[in-house]
Amino acid sequence: MSRFSFNHATAKFWDQGEAIEACAREGAGIGLWREPVAEYGLERTVRKLAATGVPVTTLCRGGFFTSPGAIAENRRAIDEAAALGTSVLVLVSGGIPEGSRDVDGARATVADALAELAPYAGEAGVTLAIEPLHPMFAADRCVVSTLDQALDLAGPFPSRQVGVVVDTYHVWWDPGLYAAIERAGAAGRIASYQVADWTTPLPAGVLTGRGQLGTGCVELRRITGAVLAAGYDGPIEVELFNDELWARPGAEVFAETAAAYREFVD
Amino acid sequence: MSRFSFNHATAKFWDQGEAIEACAREGAGIGLWREPVAEYGLERTVRKLAATGVPVTTLCRGGFFTSPGAIAENRRAIDEAAALGTSVLVLVSGGIPEGSRDVDGARATVADALAELAPYAGEAGVTLAIEPLHPMFAADRCVVSTLDQALDLAGPFPSRQVGVVVDTYHVWWDPGLYAAIERAGAAGRIASYQVADWTTPLPAGVLTGRGQLGTGCVELRRITGAVLAAGYDGPIEVELFNDELWARPGAEVFAETAAAYREFVD
Repeated sequence: MSRFSFNHATAKFWDQGEAIEACAREGAGIGLWREPVAEYGLERTVRKLAATGVPVTTLCRGGFFTSPGAIAENRRAIDEAAALGTSVLVLVSGGIPEGSRDVDGARATVADALAELAPYAGEAGVTLAIEPLHPMFAADRCVVSTLDQALDLAGPFPSRQVGVVVDTYHVWWDPGLYAAIERAGAAGRIASYQVADWTTPLPAGVLTGRGQLGTGCVELRRITGAVLAAGYDGPIEVELFNDELWARPGAEVFAETAAAYREFVD
Repeated sequence: MSRFSFNHATAKFWDQGEAIEACAREGAGIGLWREPVAEYGLERTVRKLAATGVPVTTLCRGGFFTSPGAIAENRRAIDEAAALGTSVLVLVSGGIPEGSRDVDGARATVADALAELAPYAGEAGVTLAIEPLHPMFAADRCVVSTLDQALDLAGPFPSRQVGVVVDTYHVWWDPGLYAAIERAGAAGRIASYQVADWTTPLPAGVLTGRGQLGTGCVELRRITGAVLAAGYDGPIEVELFNDELWARPGAEVFAETAAAYREFVD
């Protein structure tokens, strides 16, 4: 279980302090979110992490580059990542601006924003980790839809500054997945590896239907094997957005998730 | 409007005979579905088509190769397509069998089924048109998720036997779309071109959220231009699965759809 990390969004409404303590007991890392960090207090979060020794595996999230004020907001996110001691800021790029049909324009905006932010991130010791989201989010959440596309966007920058997130939920369907994982590993670009399962039917809005590990059709062991074979030696973070999980007590969800990780990933 | 074709599923609960008559008045083609054809009667449909002069642009659909009995069922679908005088049988490949996680195995099953059916289709004068569906359907409906993947599957067969469907709803997000359209055209593989718009939020189950032309973020003119530039000179079929449209009178939906086609595609 030495790679196991629990993303706080898996038990979204669980007190962040309790989540950190549970991770400490399990010897796990934690993936944090900016809003709960702000609510709990950044300084207080830093102290809690220091007291428990829990490493922050990612900060979620920066990005949304097609929204106004994105550059300043992302600089703040980079500062917070550095303060929390994580080298990984997850980026969800943002969708196509309301009323626009210019998907290529939105993608160009992402490339421009990376160019503006990458040096700043590099100086802070933070890697901007571009997360390709499932193509069902391309319109309203993330115009970066495949791992290859994320790697193309990362290409111009040093891998210390810009990397990618491989999240099984978003990429499992891709016919070019294993080649793309190899490519990502060879370029030293895998900044984070996240796991979730795919279950159907999807709920309305499709955001909160990620399956608990082992309940869906994702080949978790095969993809994990490929990511490790590509040279990734970092944490494996479980991140589930799921209304049913969110309705349950955090400690219970944590225990179930750790057990599922043991059975289906580890 | 000489290319306009109305897929019957756009007004799913509209009497097929009335839909054919509306297409005749508009000078449009029609895309038919096997179940309504069976309900209306195959012979009766053939007579109605002959009497009105409406061409059948596609028969929907064959495929679902990962289900038992698929080969025999698809032979029947090919026979029906030939009887209806259309050279295009749309194939939706089917998803991953219940309880399986073997997406590559499911994809291999599709390739095997094509090899078994292609000569039979060729003799009947019917092209098996592989439709890549949006990756959100990869688990439960269609393991063929991109145009390039469909072209790879079609590759071993003569283009008269196996082609592809380009449906804007399913492929608009693909960073490799325009290259894939060029490739499809150069190989003479575009057997059908269908249009629908992408709107959010998606409904539960995600099947019935296709947007009326012009209501979403798909670059309909740009994609249409690329398909025509690639050498496609066939009909343009509007196929919308949309609960709100389905709840309205067919004639009204037909008129709205023809008008939207004129404004956003033609």
